[in-house]
Amino acid sequence: MSDSEVDAHLRERTLQSTRVYQGKFLDVRCDTVGLPDGSTAQREYIVHPGAVVIVPILDDGRLVVERQYRYPMQCVMLEFPAGKLDPNEPPLACAMRELTEETGYRATEWARAGILHNAIAYSTEGIEVWFARGLTAGRSSLDQGEFLEVTTATFDELMQAANDGELTDAKSLICLLWLQNWHNGTWSLNWQKAP
Amino acid sequence: MSDSEVDAHLRERTLQSTRVYQGKFLDVRCDTVGLPDGSTAQREYIVHPGAVVIVPILDDGRLVVERQYRYPMQCVMLEFPAGKLDPNEPPLACAMRELTEETGYRATEWARAGILHNAIAYSTEGIEVWFARGLTAGRSSLDQGEFLEVTTATFDELMQAANDGELTDAKSLICLLWLQNWHNGTWSLNWQKAP
Repeated sequence: MSDSEVDAHLRERTLQSTRVYQGKFLDVRCDTVGLPDGSTAQREYIVHPGAVVIVPILDDGRLVVERQYRYPMQCVMLEFPAGKLDPNEPPLACAMRELTEETGYRATEWARAGILHNAIAYSTEGIEVWFARGLTAGRSSLDQGEFLEVTTATFDELMQAANDGELTDAKSLICLLWLQNWHNGTWSLNWQKAP
Repeated sequence: MSDSEVDAHLRERTLQSTRVYQGKFLDVRCDTVGLPDGSTAQREYIVHPGAVVIVPILDDGRLVVERQYRYPMQCVMLEFPAGKLDPNEPPLACAMRELTEETGYRATEWARAGILHNAIAYSTEGIEVWFARGLTAGRSSLDQGEFLEVTTATFDELMQAANDGELTDAKSLICLLWLQNWHNGTWSLNWQKAP
């Protein structure tokens, strides 16, 4: 049996799809779907281009992180560098671009850890997690209207911040899960030279 | 100095707020904000009521998880039980309600691990992470139009699924981070009897 047959009792089918809002950033859809029992329902969600988050590891083991005001949160958040994919941009190219734009750093080695889906109830967004090492500092070039502070922290400091509730950004917490299991040898990374 | 003075070089101030879409579920806003350099920008985001995710631990240590079709993902996702807060609902009450509605289980002990923010660029959503133990099985009562499968897995099986890219749901990955650090004694949980 194919996956679709196995999950036929769970699957929802698109009957109609409508774009209900198109902003400069948010693309909002409302679809009518057919449910497994033959009834119908509405599903409202964001169409998102996808994103990357970067775990930049300095030669001394410290990690490069950012403090950035996140308007929906109404506060400054501690997080790993991240950004949205440009149209047709491969994730690694995006990771290299965002790391340099936001922090000034360039990396000689990269490894794709995995992907996470951060709002599966209402967004198509997937965020690829990329590790970067062999870092050299340089000049950042923030987008218009982008303000952030670049700093460094140890893994232990970030784990403490997570435990204390000071680091609550989901993608960054998942970077810590990857770091912890890479450190303890359970999960491995496939490093490649920067193209 | 207060936090707001410390972060004045990062802070964005609301100049105007407009609801641009109100669906049955999504409440979408577009705000004009004043940036630290005095210029203005638009910020588009979802106003979300908040949610909980539950880590239900059976007496033999196995974990209760769900398989649910997530329409924006167009596939069945493996995840811990979760749900949105009803208006004015305290998070623990929501966690108790959602656990029973979705899985049928009731718990005698609960512990709040922390909170995560899953889409800080475009949603106000915060998801509280609650652990539950002392579980007894009962009858579930899914919402209209809600279809899901309840199953169990060991911690090791879920960590393997995370490493393999089969478990990519952000809130569930963060539950694994909490489980791992609770298991290894680094992070503690403050258990309370179910009210």
